[in-house]
Amino acid sequence: MIHEQTNSFLDRTLLRARVAWSRIAGGEYTEAAASLRPNLPDEDHRQLRTQMNECLESRGGEVSARAKAAALGRVYLALDSTGRESFLRVLATSFDVDHDAVRETASKLSELSNPQDVQITEGNLRQLLEPPRLKLLTQFNALPEGVKFLVDMRADLLSLSQNDDTLKALDRDIKGLLSRWFDVEFLTLQRITWDESSAALLEKLIAYEAVHAIQSWTDLKNRLDSDRRCFAFFHPRMPEEPLIFVEVALVNGMASNVQDLLNEDAPVLNPADANSAIFYSISNAQKGLAGISFGNFLIKRVVQELSSEFPGIKTYATLSPIPGFMTWLHKAISEGESNLLTSADHKALNAVSATKRGAKGTLKELLSSSEWLEDPVLSEAVREPLMGICARYLAQSKTERGTARDPVAHFHLTNGARMESLNWMGDRAESGITQSAGMMINYLYKESKIEDNHEAYKTDGTIAMSSSLRALVRS
Amino acid sequence: MIHEQTNSFLDRTLLRARVAWSRIAGGEYTEAAASLRPNLPDEDHRQLRTQMNECLESRGGEVSARAKAAALGRVYLALDSTGRESFLRVLATSFDVDHDAVRETASKLSELSNPQDVQITEGNLRQLLEPPRLKLLTQFNALPEGVKFLVDMRADLLSLSQNDDTLKALDRDIKGLLSRWFDVEFLTLQRITWDESSAALLEKLIAYEAVHAIQSWTDLKNRLDSDRRCFAFFHPRMPEEPLIFVEVALVNGMASNVQDLLNEDAPVLNPADANSAIFYSISNAQKGLAGISFGNFLIKRVVQELSSEFPGIKTYATLSPIPGFMTWLHKAISEGESNLLTSADHKALNAVSATKRGAKGTLKELLSSSEWLEDPVLSEAVREPLMGICARYLAQSKTERGTARDPVAHFHLTNGARMESLNWMGDRAESGITQSAGMMINYLYKESKIEDNHEAYKTDGTIAMSSSLRALVRS
Amino acid sequence: MIHEQTNSFLDRTLLRARVAWSRIAGGEYTEAAASLRPNLPDEDHRQLRTQMNECLESRGGEVSARAKAAALGRVYLALDSTGRESFLRVLATSFDVDHDAVRETASKLSELSNPQDVQITEGNLRQLLEPPRLKLLTQFNALPEGVKFLVDMRADLLSLSQNDDTLKALDRDIKGLLSRWFDVEFLTLQRITWDESSAALLEKLIAYEAVHAIQSWTDLKNRLDSDRRCFAFFHPRMPEEPLIFVEVALVNGMASNVQDLLNEDAPVLNPADANSAIFYSISNAQKGLAGISFGNFLIKRVVQELSSEFPGIKTYATLSPIPGFMTWLHKAISEGESNLLTSADHKALNAVSATKRGAKGTLKELLSSSEWLEDPVLSEAVREPLMGICARYLAQSKTERGTARDPVAHFHLTNGARMESLNWMGDRAESGITQSAGMMINYLYKESKIEDNHEAYKTDGTIAMSSSLRALVRS
Amino acid sequence: MIHEQTNSFLDRTLLRARVAWSRIAGGEYTEAAASLRPNLPDEDHRQLRTQMNECLESRGGEVSARAKAAALGRVYLALDSTGRESFLRVLATSFDVDHDAVRETASKLSELSNPQDVQITEGNLRQLLEPPRLKLLTQFNALPEGVKFLVDMRADLLSLSQNDDTLKALDRDIKGLLSRWFDVEFLTLQRITWDESSAALLEKLIAYEAVHAIQSWTDLKNRLDSDRRCFAFFHPRMPEEPLIFVEVALVNGMASNVQDLLNEDAPVLNPADANSAIFYSISNAQKGLAGISFGNFLIKRVVQELSSEFPGIKTYATLSPIPGFMTWLHKAISEGESNLLTSADHKALNAVSATKRGAKGTLKELLSSSEWLEDPVLSEAVREPLMGICARYLAQSKTERGTARDPVAHFHLTNGARMESLNWMGDRAESGITQSAGMMINYLYKESKIEDNHEAYKTDGTIAMSSSLRALVRS
Repeated sequence: MIHEQTNSFLDRTLLRARVAWSRIAGGEYTEAAASLRPNLPDEDHRQLRTQMNECLESRGGEVSARAKAAALGRVYLALDSTGRESFLRVLATSFDVDHDAVRETASKLSELSNPQDVQITEGNLRQLLEPPRLKLLTQFNALPEGVKFLVDMRADLLSLSQNDDTLKALDRDIKGLLSRWFDVEFLTLQRITWDESSAALLEKLIAYEAVHAIQSWTDLKNRLDSDRRCFAFFHPRMPEEPLIFVEVALVNGMASNVQDLLNEDAPVLNPADANSAIFYSISNAQKGLAGISFGNFLIKRVVQELSSEFPGIKTYATLSPIPGFMTWLHKAISEGESNLLTSADHKALNAVSATKRGAKGTLKELLSSSEWLEDPVLSEAVREPLMGICARYLAQSKTERGTARDPVAHFHLTNGARMESLNWMGDRAESGITQSAGMMINYLYKESKIEDNHEAYKTDGTIAMSSSLRALVRS
Repeated sequence: MIHEQTNSFLDRTLLRARVAWSRIAGGEYTEAAASLRPNLPDEDHRQLRTQMNECLESRGGEVSARAKAAALGRVYLALDSTGRESFLRVLATSFDVDHDAVRETASKLSELSNPQDVQITEGNLRQLLEPPRLKLLTQFNALPEGVKFLVDMRADLLSLSQNDDTLKALDRDIKGLLSRWFDVEFLTLQRITWDESSAALLEKLIAYEAVHAIQSWTDLKNRLDSDRRCFAFFHPRMPEEPLIFVEVALVNGMASNVQDLLNEDAPVLNPADANSAIFYSISNAQKGLAGISFGNFLIKRVVQELSSEFPGIKTYATLSPIPGFMTWLHKAISEGESNLLTSADHKALNAVSATKRGAKGTLKELLSSSEWLEDPVLSEAVREPLMGICARYLAQSKTERGTARDPVAHFHLTNGARMESLNWMGDRAESGITQSAGMMINYLYKESKIEDNHEAYKTDGTIAMSSSLRALVRS
Repeated sequence: MIHEQTNSFLDRTLLRARVAWSRIAGGEYTEAAASLRPNLPDEDHRQLRTQMNECLESRGGEVSARAKAAALGRVYLALDSTGRESFLRVLATSFDVDHDAVRETASKLSELSNPQDVQITEGNLRQLLEPPRLKLLTQFNALPEGVKFLVDMRADLLSLSQNDDTLKALDRDIKGLLSRWFDVEFLTLQRITWDESSAALLEKLIAYEAVHAIQSWTDLKNRLDSDRRCFAFFHPRMPEEPLIFVEVALVNGMASNVQDLLNEDAPVLNPADANSAIFYSISNAQKGLAGISFGNFLIKRVVQELSSEFPGIKTYATLSPIPGFMTWLHKAISEGESNLLTSADHKALNAVSATKRGAKGTLKELLSSSEWLEDPVLSEAVREPLMGICARYLAQSKTERGTARDPVAHFHLTNGARMESLNWMGDRAESGITQSAGMMINYLYKESKIEDNHEAYKTDGTIAMSSSLRALVRS
Repeated sequence: MIHEQTNSFLDRTLLRARVAWSRIAGGEYTEAAASLRPNLPDEDHRQLRTQMNECLESRGGEVSARAKAAALGRVYLALDSTGRESFLRVLATSFDVDHDAVRETASKLSELSNPQDVQITEGNLRQLLEPPRLKLLTQFNALPEGVKFLVDMRADLLSLSQNDDTLKALDRDIKGLLSRWFDVEFLTLQRITWDESSAALLEKLIAYEAVHAIQSWTDLKNRLDSDRRCFAFFHPRMPEEPLIFVEVALVNGMASNVQDLLNEDAPVLNPADANSAIFYSISNAQKGLAGISFGNFLIKRVVQELSSEFPGIKTYATLSPIPGFMTWLHKAISEGESNLLTSADHKALNAVSATKRGAKGTLKELLSSSEWLEDPVLSEAVREPLMGICARYLAQSKTERGTARDPVAHFHLTNGARMESLNWMGDRAESGITQSAGMMINYLYKESKIEDNHEAYKTDGTIAMSSSLRALVRS
């Protein structure tokens, strides 16, 4: 349920930022980069380091500091992907902590006893431990588009730093900065509507939606109808960029099928008559804010908003994908089906193979084509076995750290939700079939239980579940 | 020129914050403090520490964390001044850095060589060097009135920490936090007007004005007339509290007398005809933000605003007090007048003593009563000697660090202004007579020279001066 | 309770409008008037008529029409009071309906029978009956300050047209225009607060308040405290000018004394605990809108606002002056006291005269000095007689049209209120003593009765009264 | 160039208004209409009249008056088209002026001579001439959606009243009301942008655009790009409904082809470099405001806006359709071609017929199929003759009142524009071919000539033309 936008959109976004920036900062970003080649070969590193050093120098007022940071930003934006990696690497290595100075001061500190001396030396050590690149990056905060620039630079960095300790250390610094800037207290929750939100903003929803792709402006309008709600978090320094947004359907009863929710021809419910709010899509919009979580706060704030607007809503739940199921299942099958299926399951599958010519009665066989989807008999035959396996996947498959393997499950369990019901053919879209054989799950947010569920999951990985799901697990 | 509000107003402000807070946080601040006595005797410290520890624990969601911080804040507000000092001391000592753990890790670090180990241990050290009280204080940022609370708590702390290293360390932490929160980038400049600003805000100007007290609403209205401007910096988390504000008069030529500027009966100039903008009052409004300077940025931003509104304005200057002069002079006189006066001065004073019965011809004698002010002959006699001495005070009297002794001079010289002209009887108000024998000085902000002046002053204490002032110094 | 601002303020207002206007309309208002003398002697009338005629001509676009109207407005503003009267008279006589053309068309119409001819001729007649001055005045609507100009011009006119049919006809036209422009649907209700309203607006409240003068900014702040409310109607074309405003106290029980309400040292009530809203002052702010009533709508809208904010408020009532009482009483006394006093009253007054040296036992005598106010015995003696007389004045004294003689009573009765209780010494201010011997009255707005009360009063002058007041009347 | 939205959209709009209204007015519009049948047969007229009469009665406060008007509005909205016609007819006939009373008073007036009597009787006559339906309709002004309701009711009425004097009289009343409410002074000009305007508003542009249909959201986005501008007039009582809007292209030189302007793949010009603003589409959005013209003001206001934003723009012109040309031409051809063509034209056409097999050398023949469009030789052959004829059509074909026959020409000539250049194949869209054989024309707005052009056209129908157009006419 928590996804990010594709790279291609990021590229477009960067492009726009670039244009906006060159306009605001009053120069052409290409000029500044004229003498540095797009792929930033080694011969250019010295010049780059000089430019970075100038940003760190205190001479000149804050206006010229700003101009220097903007120029450096334009250099980065003009680079190609090879050049950007080099740029980040120069930043990571040449503007790191001075380890020798740290060691020396640490050594000195370990010999001091006078409290005042200790305090002073601790202060020095504290300063030495702050790498110069941090100060340099902080200067982007002062630029009109600088915060978005850093967010997008981190998106680049994340795709490079996977197995690279040097770049990981740089990422730790940027993430630390962004965490501080994007403190949830600074965020504002805004409702997004067809009647009041700008086309430019709505266009971004279309681009950023990551769970159930928005097909057209008509689809979007339908998702903003009077029995729907959409909310997003915004940051004051990036006023036109949603950070994360959620789409909610106001319905009666628990929603079990996402195509029903998205059906443009479905009648509109009077929202005052709804008794349930179904969160059917949550999308992170900024790849560069990965790991800085707002989802939890977003759900809480939206529940607050909705309960004050609609006192009649008693149930707050999601209709969520199970993105990890099929990948896990295929791996499990390849390791042997016997543990996956109960004896009743085996019997059911064999019965089918008897009637269907060529069917071999194994899951592997059945799932190898899309026949099971189209043939009602096959479909019915796999239903119970697959739902049982999926329930066990959700309830029992854990990571090494003891948390739920399914990322969406982990997200909602951490927030204090419980697994409520598993829905067969809840998402017939291709992505739904591929990810989870079309199944979807409801997570229930019951206010009185949220704290307990959260604590139990955090303490020992206990997963809260409804009795119906528990029965499925045991099946 | 840079002053702070009086304590009595701070008290009123705190009172209001208290009321506002108890309202917002949904409880009565007295309840929370019920079991702690106002003067916080030693027996209550254990309970206080427990409460502080609970704020630091991670159990519970962010809502309960917020409630705990609010409760702790209410405890503080309910204490008397003795109790507050104890509270701050508990915070400073019981939630300090764990010096032993720091020492141990520092010692370990000094023996490591493997880069990866170094990096990890540096990370640990970095964390150990961050005192727990910092995390605790940070939580106030999340509360509606929390930022103002910390600002006011620091105001209390500043009056206690003068000679106390423990409290100074706490102040360093709070100041660090506030510096980050009050980064100039987050501040917004607002023009304050009679037609659009609220009475509540204007009332604060009256309370906070620290240079030339605002006598009445009529006086204030006059200072906001069409040939006057007033600008203030605000912070988004304290939207109704000005941080610093400046009052500007649009005039023709350099202003030399502040009573003329404040005269309610003076004719109003068409501001489009003005050629000079005179900054005649700058007041810091928040005592708790001492040392976190915005004045420099404020002047630059206001100059920008004014130059885009009034292309006809060619001169930007101040009409400033010389707050340290008379204190310095009395001390200098007590150490012997001979060095202060030129031989011409001596002659002039002696000539007066010959005509005035009982006058002894020394400065000490002359300044010992207010006769010199009221008697035109005496007044004229001391004029030249006093202006010479004052010019030398401004130009030559330095602190140990080599900066100008006069604090207002230091402020404007740091910002790149130059000393332009000294005005005899520029401020006939009692405070003006007491501080500087009624003299005022213009500092000139000439855009093309600002950077150079700033650099020269910063590098070797060189003070930029007009030729007329230089002549006075030499006199 | 419904009063208007004094002329002196109007003059200041006009002055400001004049300045604002000359600024906006881009010329100096004096220029335009250069050739017309301030007192507008007869010789200048021809030129004025020419200028007016040019405003009515259709040649040129709407921009030049606007410029012409602005020029004419500036002429008016530059005139002295004699000149203004001449101006208004020229407008009234030279731009009146063409009575001959009307008569001719009317005569023709009376002979037509063909429906289509009738319709056409009726159309012609309709146009002929619209005087040219109306079209001319309408053009001021297009000017930035034009609506306020017409309102103020009507204020001038009203003081001149008392016994002048020509000017009355002009007033009928202006009033018609303003009634249409100031349709209650166009008005917006705004709450006025210390925290959000501008000083410029609050300053106008001080100037316009007509019932209980606002003594100072502190007095005003007290009237805007958390247990007080102030609301005003505004018109979009005069956004900075309140049309009418009301001050409300949120209290427990019925308020009986206005000095208690205005006491700056009284403790503040938590408004959520209040059970009554007392309207203690309603002031019309625009003299030129006399006869165009908003008071009724204002009360209804404010009741709506308050009941949605404070569900605990059960009683909506006024604490009102009785402005006509003493004038009426003095006249009645001069016609003989015998009818005014009951025999019990006579006895009570005689008893006093027996104990007080020189007291003659008549009302005339007693009220001829302020002794009765200061002497508790006398005060107690006149209390019952005066309250009885006042109750009868309120309940029984009618105008020729059968409406209540007291203007404030008439206003509230028309709105459907009932007379609730009479308060002895409800207003000890000098004006209260002079108007009504210090008595005040509560009018009660009980939602379920408003329509009936209104209908009964309108149909046959029936005055709704509480039983306590009825008892007083009968006493 | 001035068109209106289609009926189908109006229906949707009405539907929405209906829903909005029933919501706001707090009742279901169907209830109120329960007893009246959708087609409003004669038997229901009495009940309708009663309901209308109740709206006119003064009993009850303004709240119940409002409720009654809302109920009547809901009745209307629930009717089918037959019912609506009946409703309008009842309104027109039963609530007309009392002609007998008018006649009687007119007759009386014609005999009076005493000025005061005349004045009083004129007043009476004025009132009698105001039909009761006017008062009734005025009450809709007070309803939240009432203004839009009247506008849409008039749209219905206009399609019915073509040849019906009774309904025309009703229309005269409604138009009078709307003219007053929609005085240009009340209108606000708003820029419409992709970044700030709501999707709901942009969706209306798509629906209302009447000159060059908007194909998609991408087409719309292109029309709002940085080198385009779109402005609309709004009325405060219909804040979400544009009244009229104009689309402008900022280009270099005079634009001659509308497909070029609308090309989504064309490069974007830096608007600061543009020297011309081309008004390429003006659409009236409210059918019910027909005859209440804002177009003139809109152009003037937009020129103001653009010239203050872009000092570099020197040319303001349109690229306009010639909607009446082909209709006129076909009629002219049917009356004989000889007058249409010059001898050179004849020769040219004959030359073509000689080379093209089967071509007969007459315009009628050539234009009878689309061959002339596709065949470059034919196309070239008809070019000169058609441009000449079209120029003569524009310059010489007049209505009986002496105004230009082409409605778009009449609109711009009235506004003071001059005919600048005729563009061959300026609009290759089907509608362009059908209306004007693909030709488009530029009207030039030259500020210094606007007044003179306007006067000349208005006085004696003189059409301002460039020399190139004049040459074409003479050709």
